[in-house]
Amino acid sequence: MASDKPTKRQKSDKDMPYNLIYWPGIPGRGEHIRLVLEESGAEYTDTAHTKGGIDEVIAFVQGKVDDDDINPPLCAPPILKHGDLVINQTPNILLYLGPRLGLVPDADEDPDGLYRVNGLALTALDGLSNEPHDCHHPISTGLYYEDQKAESKRRSEDYVKTRLPKFLGYFERVLGSRASGDGPWLYGGRLTYADLVLFQCIDGLKFMFPKAMAKLEREGNHTKVFALHQAVAERPKIKAYLNSPRRQKYSNGIYRYYEELDIEG
Amino acid sequence: MASDKPTKRQKSDKDMPYNLIYWPGIPGRGEHIRLVLEESGAEYTDTAHTKGGIDEVIAFVQGKVDDDDINPPLCAPPILKHGDLVINQTPNILLYLGPRLGLVPDADEDPDGLYRVNGLALTALDGLSNEPHDCHHPISTGLYYEDQKAESKRRSEDYVKTRLPKFLGYFERVLGSRASGDGPWLYGGRLTYADLVLFQCIDGLKFMFPKAMAKLEREGNHTKVFALHQAVAERPKIKAYLNSPRRQKYSNGIYRYYEELDIEG
Repeated sequence: MASDKPTKRQKSDKDMPYNLIYWPGIPGRGEHIRLVLEESGAEYTDTAHTKGGIDEVIAFVQGKVDDDDINPPLCAPPILKHGDLVINQTPNILLYLGPRLGLVPDADEDPDGLYRVNGLALTALDGLSNEPHDCHHPISTGLYYEDQKAESKRRSEDYVKTRLPKFLGYFERVLGSRASGDGPWLYGGRLTYADLVLFQCIDGLKFMFPKAMAKLEREGNHTKVFALHQAVAERPKIKAYLNSPRRQKYSNGIYRYYEELDIEG
Repeated sequence: MASDKPTKRQKSDKDMPYNLIYWPGIPGRGEHIRLVLEESGAEYTDTAHTKGGIDEVIAFVQGKVDDDDINPPLCAPPILKHGDLVINQTPNILLYLGPRLGLVPDADEDPDGLYRVNGLALTALDGLSNEPHDCHHPISTGLYYEDQKAESKRRSEDYVKTRLPKFLGYFERVLGSRASGDGPWLYGGRLTYADLVLFQCIDGLKFMFPKAMAKLEREGNHTKVFALHQAVAERPKIKAYLNSPRRQKYSNGIYRYYEELDIEG
């Protein structure tokens, strides 16, 4: 009789595709989300590659998306939709995806590992993504770079000379710590989303400050950080992604190249 | 015979006191952690009030704390110790404490509520704590304010005129959304740690930009935001805390008062 047999298979959490809502044309903050989805082979859509995708981003930014009953309004991308859930904030989306896509320590073996990974990701985003962004926008995100060029020069000089080596030194220390375990990864001897975040930060910084990053690599005090970047780039799914049209070129996003800011340090 | 009966009661997670490691003399980022601990009546220590507490903070900042087997090294406060766990990053500590101290939605009823609360807290910290900090340190956290005064003036003018109303407007919209539920709170009709974060941001901004905040309050477009600030301040445990010596005065932290930056907008 099988009357209770479902005619349609109920989609489980994992079967639902992920929808990334982010600006087209730049890797930007959305890139951290893309790398997690790509590494885990998850099914997802990306407004960077869908027709009219940018309108969806703009609707959120301009507060024109209708409220629903369960999700607070959101004001800035990246935004992730997954079933009925709509959330934003890069580290928050990573936190949501991490356990679902196997990019955090096992919750039974290491219940607090998630917080350690989240802390590392937040520190990388602060020092190696938000701070570089403010190097070309130290006065206002609402003004053009050209209208804050003198301040950008001053901020970039400080960043390259003091902040960049400080944060690379910090992550070198993390990678050499006992808690990092074996292998090239930041925590617990296994790949987590914090590694993917650090990869993208180093990758963007190599584009933005090529002279300074080359000098730091040459000096040899951060070999583990540069080895992590290489190890992520060589993972089969990441490698295929980086060579695909899904990976966008650096442009006017977080990591930008301005010759006058390309200081050796 | 009860030979397997423990002679000492094993301390459960909740019995262990929390140890906050943060700079003395300012509310700062540590204040978000204090408010969560105070509202929930948790037992905690605070290096702001312990002899030699500052040395403990400095040891972390200078990388002089010995590595252990399970926690990655940390480079900046606030830091939370709880049993064997040592973590940092304000939103990460809040995420750890929230479920333990009853300041997030019930995980059985609303399993994704935690991500919505975390997203709101991250947005408040970005726009109403990190951005105000950069108003007096737009070029470098390593330089004195006096060495970046002209840039501070320019950044503060932009912040007060464009960013501050934008973020207050966003939170006003959240508070008026269906997802906020009944009452003065941001999400789900109940107090969460995102409300405590927003309280502290508004409180600090009133100290830093009194003219602009008074004007915004007078104009009446953000009544729900100011009502939330009031509602948190009136909670019995928070009220007692704010009147106690445990609450530190604003000084040279995130929220600072400089007459020349006190712009009406």
